[in-house]
Amino acid sequence: MAKKIGVLLSGCGYLDGAEIQEAVLALYFLDRAGCEVVCLAPDKAQVDVVDHQAGTPVTERRNVRRESARIARGSVRDVAEVSARELDALVIPGGYGAAKNLCSFAADGKDCQVDPGVAKLVKDLHAAHKPIGALCIAPALVARLLGPDHAVELTIGDDAGTASAVVAMGARHVDRAVDAIAVDERNRVVTTPCYMLARGPAEVGAGIEKLVAKLVSWL
Amino acid sequence: MAKKIGVLLSGCGYLDGAEIQEAVLALYFLDRAGCEVVCLAPDKAQVDVVDHQAGTPVTERRNVRRESARIARGSVRDVAEVSARELDALVIPGGYGAAKNLCSFAADGKDCQVDPGVAKLVKDLHAAHKPIGALCIAPALVARLLGPDHAVELTIGDDAGTASAVVAMGARHVDRAVDAIAVDERNRVVTTPCYMLARGPAEVGAGIEKLVAKLVSWL
Repeated sequence: MAKKIGVLLSGCGYLDGAEIQEAVLALYFLDRAGCEVVCLAPDKAQVDVVDHQAGTPVTERRNVRRESARIARGSVRDVAEVSARELDALVIPGGYGAAKNLCSFAADGKDCQVDPGVAKLVKDLHAAHKPIGALCIAPALVARLLGPDHAVELTIGDDAGTASAVVAMGARHVDRAVDAIAVDERNRVVTTPCYMLARGPAEVGAGIEKLVAKLVSWL
Repeated sequence: MAKKIGVLLSGCGYLDGAEIQEAVLALYFLDRAGCEVVCLAPDKAQVDVVDHQAGTPVTERRNVRRESARIARGSVRDVAEVSARELDALVIPGGYGAAKNLCSFAADGKDCQVDPGVAKLVKDLHAAHKPIGALCIAPALVARLLGPDHAVELTIGDDAGTASAVVAMGARHVDRAVDAIAVDERNRVVTTPCYMLARGPAEVGAGIEKLVAKLVSWL
């Protein structure tokens, strides 16, 4: 039977939601690997809405789950209603949505809070020794949730400020090139820098292809 | 010097804009092929806005170019201001946006009107013998623009109703499987069914990978 992989989305567009190219390339490589994908998102208002042409916030309101459905091409499950028992693994694309809507890292750095539904699912998956893949800035929320007790080894690329924030939350940070992955075998966590470093979708895809291969090797 | 390929977007989300997975996979394979990509869209209101979670229209208004910038990760050029001289080729992803915002095929079928900026660019590229790749339902607007004079050979998969509409506009239709392309060497037009037939992103990617390889072979 196909392995069932959750893909945790945070909206649709890198400035206020999930990074679209990272999300789609994760779906692509998971589908190519024969996995069944289930898209998940918190059912709540986005922290903000940003005009991606101008790069500036606007006064509109949008819902994280409804916008995520644009990437998924259909129904996205409320992350608060998904049990770790239903999934074999989880992948979390980046984009500011991961640092605004899934947790408050963009505003609060190392003192960030994580959405309760996201926190429960990630902690339960980790406790069940099920693999977690995190792209771009999403490793920050994994660092926050696993904390100093698990000292997860991960990468957000090579940005010193971001790296020191994940270390302050209890993770061990390793620099990685855009097409490389950081693998923590003990915690079953795999991470790759994507648009923390990438200049375009080919580089993003190179990292995600390796991340998915590693994730699937654990199943 | 890298070849410069336009990618013509029509919003962000398959029910009211560009099909996101098709658009991203086109960007991915073009980038992997070493092309420089320029994203384009009409600068106008979307015909409608659809809640992709519920599948039903809502009363909001959104701008085609601003929403397209979510996929592009930044500035999208107004298609009306781009000359065929600037591009080596054009790729048009599908989604209802191609049949609502780029032309009126979704509402008017074979009698559809094409956005003037889109019509001028596509006709000028064709006249200059520059390649055009069209995905999913986007071949319908190519059929409309080239008409019976050029009798372009293309595919929208195997849907009989859609095929008969493109034939009524003057094209020759050939059935193709989801991972195959239809190639018109004389007109330099290449098409693939994508989500007219696909069950997921791996099938979409298989067709787009072939389409990009063919497109690039003409440059």
